[in-house]
Amino acid sequence: MDPKSPIPRKIVIVAHPKVPEAAPEAKELAAYLQEHDTQTVHGMLYDEGLRKRVKAGEFDLLIALGGDGTILRAGHLCAPGELPLLGINMGRLGFLMEIHKQEWRSFIPRLLAGDYWLENRMMLTAEHWRAGEKQGSWDVLNEVVVSRGQTIRAVHIATMVDGRHLTTFVADALIAATPTGSTAYALAAGGPILPPELRNILLVPVAPHLSLDRALVLAEGSSVSMTVDGDSQAVFSVDGQAPVGLAESDRVDVFAGKHSVHFIRFQDPGYFYRNLTPHMGMNQSNYKNG
Amino acid sequence: MDPKSPIPRKIVIVAHPKVPEAAPEAKELAAYLQEHDTQTVHGMLYDEGLRKRVKAGEFDLLIALGGDGTILRAGHLCAPGELPLLGINMGRLGFLMEIHKQEWRSFIPRLLAGDYWLENRMMLTAEHWRAGEKQGSWDVLNEVVVSRGQTIRAVHIATMVDGRHLTTFVADALIAATPTGSTAYALAAGGPILPPELRNILLVPVAPHLSLDRALVLAEGSSVSMTVDGDSQAVFSVDGQAPVGLAESDRVDVFAGKHSVHFIRFQDPGYFYRNLTPHMGMNQSNYKNG
Amino acid sequence: MDPKSPIPRKIVIVAHPKVPEAAPEAKELAAYLQEHDTQTVHGMLYDEGLRKRVKAGEFDLLIALGGDGTILRAGHLCAPGELPLLGINMGRLGFLMEIHKQEWRSFIPRLLAGDYWLENRMMLTAEHWRAGEKQGSWDVLNEVVVSRGQTIRAVHIATMVDGRHLTTFVADALIAATPTGSTAYALAAGGPILPPELRNILLVPVAPHLSLDRALVLAEGSSVSMTVDGDSQAVFSVDGQAPVGLAESDRVDVFAGKHSVHFIRFQDPGYFYRNLTPHMGMNQSNYKNG
Amino acid sequence: MDPKSPIPRKIVIVAHPKVPEAAPEAKELAAYLQEHDTQTVHGMLYDEGLRKRVKAGEFDLLIALGGDGTILRAGHLCAPGELPLLGINMGRLGFLMEIHKQEWRSFIPRLLAGDYWLENRMMLTAEHWRAGEKQGSWDVLNEVVVSRGQTIRAVHIATMVDGRHLTTFVADALIAATPTGSTAYALAAGGPILPPELRNILLVPVAPHLSLDRALVLAEGSSVSMTVDGDSQAVFSVDGQAPVGLAESDRVDVFAGKHSVHFIRFQDPGYFYRNLTPHMGMNQSNYKNG
Repeated sequence: MDPKSPIPRKIVIVAHPKVPEAAPEAKELAAYLQEHDTQTVHGMLYDEGLRKRVKAGEFDLLIALGGDGTILRAGHLCAPGELPLLGINMGRLGFLMEIHKQEWRSFIPRLLAGDYWLENRMMLTAEHWRAGEKQGSWDVLNEVVVSRGQTIRAVHIATMVDGRHLTTFVADALIAATPTGSTAYALAAGGPILPPELRNILLVPVAPHLSLDRALVLAEGSSVSMTVDGDSQAVFSVDGQAPVGLAESDRVDVFAGKHSVHFIRFQDPGYFYRNLTPHMGMNQSNYKNG
Repeated sequence: MDPKSPIPRKIVIVAHPKVPEAAPEAKELAAYLQEHDTQTVHGMLYDEGLRKRVKAGEFDLLIALGGDGTILRAGHLCAPGELPLLGINMGRLGFLMEIHKQEWRSFIPRLLAGDYWLENRMMLTAEHWRAGEKQGSWDVLNEVVVSRGQTIRAVHIATMVDGRHLTTFVADALIAATPTGSTAYALAAGGPILPPELRNILLVPVAPHLSLDRALVLAEGSSVSMTVDGDSQAVFSVDGQAPVGLAESDRVDVFAGKHSVHFIRFQDPGYFYRNLTPHMGMNQSNYKNG
Repeated sequence: MDPKSPIPRKIVIVAHPKVPEAAPEAKELAAYLQEHDTQTVHGMLYDEGLRKRVKAGEFDLLIALGGDGTILRAGHLCAPGELPLLGINMGRLGFLMEIHKQEWRSFIPRLLAGDYWLENRMMLTAEHWRAGEKQGSWDVLNEVVVSRGQTIRAVHIATMVDGRHLTTFVADALIAATPTGSTAYALAAGGPILPPELRNILLVPVAPHLSLDRALVLAEGSSVSMTVDGDSQAVFSVDGQAPVGLAESDRVDVFAGKHSVHFIRFQDPGYFYRNLTPHMGMNQSNYKNG
Repeated sequence: MDPKSPIPRKIVIVAHPKVPEAAPEAKELAAYLQEHDTQTVHGMLYDEGLRKRVKAGEFDLLIALGGDGTILRAGHLCAPGELPLLGINMGRLGFLMEIHKQEWRSFIPRLLAGDYWLENRMMLTAEHWRAGEKQGSWDVLNEVVVSRGQTIRAVHIATMVDGRHLTTFVADALIAATPTGSTAYALAAGGPILPPELRNILLVPVAPHLSLDRALVLAEGSSVSMTVDGDSQAVFSVDGQAPVGLAESDRVDVFAGKHSVHFIRFQDPGYFYRNLTPHMGMNQSNYKNG
């Protein structure tokens, strides 16, 4: 087969600092890649120097070693420059990673032959507004969550879609997720599964109390605004990062972002469905009559 | 405001035979419309003569009086000719109907002034295949259901998406629904809500047993194939119509259809979200601290 | 350890006719037992001659070989005479069976030494009433289901608890289950899990539509009456057996029965919780941070 | 009808300070009771002087004015001395309150005639253990929750029942609730409903992630131990009170408590089922065919 995709030449490998085997594996992989006609550097995921070089556009591929959390952080790093991303999984099979650490020796030659495809996963943009001023803006690969803080009490989240009042959720939290996020926190909250090629926005309330208790699937072009009613210690969080406090009347806006994450894939596009049931711990053949 | 939409001149009104007040109301509405510069006929929803005239393209608007079941049947009648459809609700507020019977006197003048818009709702096509031969084909406004028959036992439904194996659902039934159907049977089965302008296909298992227990949202262009494994008395049904028996190895294919239903709407496009919470029996203000 | 439980001397072994390996295994087990100081006969689960001898009280233990369906049928057979029951599982691990076919050689010596305990599982009694006359009565080990028939349309099930109106469920079906049944159909319908020693009655609606959508747990002493409103083709079914048609105004009453099923257990009473997660296809260690 | 229940003579009325109409209503009710042959005092729910007098056993009835939160706090106050409690609801219909503020004038004469009954609601005891030392102990009327703190990440909650490992929940939180609590937070998390006379313990995970995702119903006599695995900022909370931090390896034990709350009831014991559907926002007659 002829190579179809560009062959990466300038590669950066990042390892998650809390996954002990990640750094040695990164070093070994870097050595392999250097021997195979690439310029490859490696380091820690949160190394500021390395991150600056990524942002400066120095590389044409980032390889991340760790778990699902690692790939989320790596996705944020790659998104602004649309840098292709390959995840190598150091632990259990994750929804985002397709190569396990034992496997890279058989897949990397395919990478270096251009024998892969790029899967583009939509991101959302989240904006935090207070009194008419934007407090910050975030790229979102999995989900934005508007949530109760530490106090275990439902919050009232007035929700607009495309400028129209949808409902006031009374719940622990409201999740606005991408299709990628549909297999993360949104799944735990009872939401539906959206395959990665979709570009819909998914809304899922967590523990809704005598209020709308269903997930909603919105069109790609939709915008969602979430405002917490009443005094509370509500927070919001993007992709599981540290929560940000919401003052009274603060608003979180969410809409399709302009960036995507470009995942390197070796398996055919059916991999998502094929892996879905094993990922969810289901055994296909565990039900018989008699 | 200038009229934006075509003014209907040849109108057919159909009443559901099991809704007692529908026929007299149809007669009264017909008289009103005849006095207002239209050619209007009225009759029963299942009147074969009337249905033939609809199919022959004699009319430019169909008005249906009844409940949600009526509008489904009327939608099927209108779909092949893309005939605009207005539903007048004789009972409780339905998800598909926006005019209640008491209200037509205020809305019909807007209709006759062209002061309305057309909401296009996607339909699916369902095909029943046996041994390589198509047994039949159906337009679907709400959902196709592959289900256990009368015997209360889970059926194994091997499911393909775009020619790739997704999973084998072990469940009472598997629902393949349109966005319109997301507020019907799929809602009862725990599925998400999709606003009417979406064109995704929704899969929801009913009472899944130790197998994939989540709804899936697919792209508009996807095709779904459902095959019941093992001997069973499985059936399938389109939009709540009489069930059709499935022989061993029969297959039901579902994909986006070429027809749509064109609903006459007077309310602004935000009506769907606005009506969602009251439709679901939720009271927005029923939760307070203290 | 001193034997604590009676040593069985007159044993009947029944095999499920649709499980091919069950009959040869039954024969082998019978030979083993005959060599070990017991009178043992074996045959098919539905053999009428054998069933009569069971009902006549000829045996002091019944061993059933098959799957979860086999143990249900065997439980019905044993219940009236309170005959102890041991299930040997020929397929996947079931919720009711604890011995797998490969294991009986190590467990049967414990049985013959009296080194086991009896777990009593409550049964319900279901009665079918029409116009003041009882049509029939059933022992229930898993559940009674009042359900739609083949036509896929919600039925309205007016439900009384202890003579007081609870609610009218609008659903595909309403399940009244024992704790044993809480891991069967009721689980698929979203119900909670009740450990086997409980004596509560569990009510779970299947696909409830804009009506009460929660499971209810009732006291052991409660009685439940279910009546299907309106014309329908509703049915009811006990423990997955062939459905029985319900005429208009027919009533199904359910209450704690006077029989129990007495399961032979070798594992300690914690077996239920220990097996719960693997039974449900869950892998305890499949979630990691990083 | 002859009076059946003791006639209260020494009454304390407490009002929730955040419910503006509660204090004036309390004053009016106190005046009424003083005129009717009782010694009645009134004050604020959190008035320390008044609380001391309650604990000293000075009264034979406590009347609480406010919402569901008020009755919870009042229940804690009454429990140690088993003081009967009457709740008067100042807002929406609550699950715990049966008298609305407009209604007390018709119900109080029945109270003063002894024409009422006492409904005993079980409480749980929650204990917080660290390194073999008990940190504190709480009466629980609704639920104990072991939960993530402010950071939105699932916690691993290793759970024992009666000294045996049940499972490790991976979830936002795990709720251990009384039957009373089954209509509070546990309901929002998808749990079943238990009528108030039950004495079972209910376990419900909140947003379970690829782990056991069902509620469990345990026997009254069961004890539950919950330990958060791994470093986290986990907390626990009793009846919605301020969360308490859990250090690594801390344990929360829960078991049936020795106190009950004794609610004054005027309606017949069927009130719970009768109020269930309206409380949950369900309209019994909102579903029709046609």
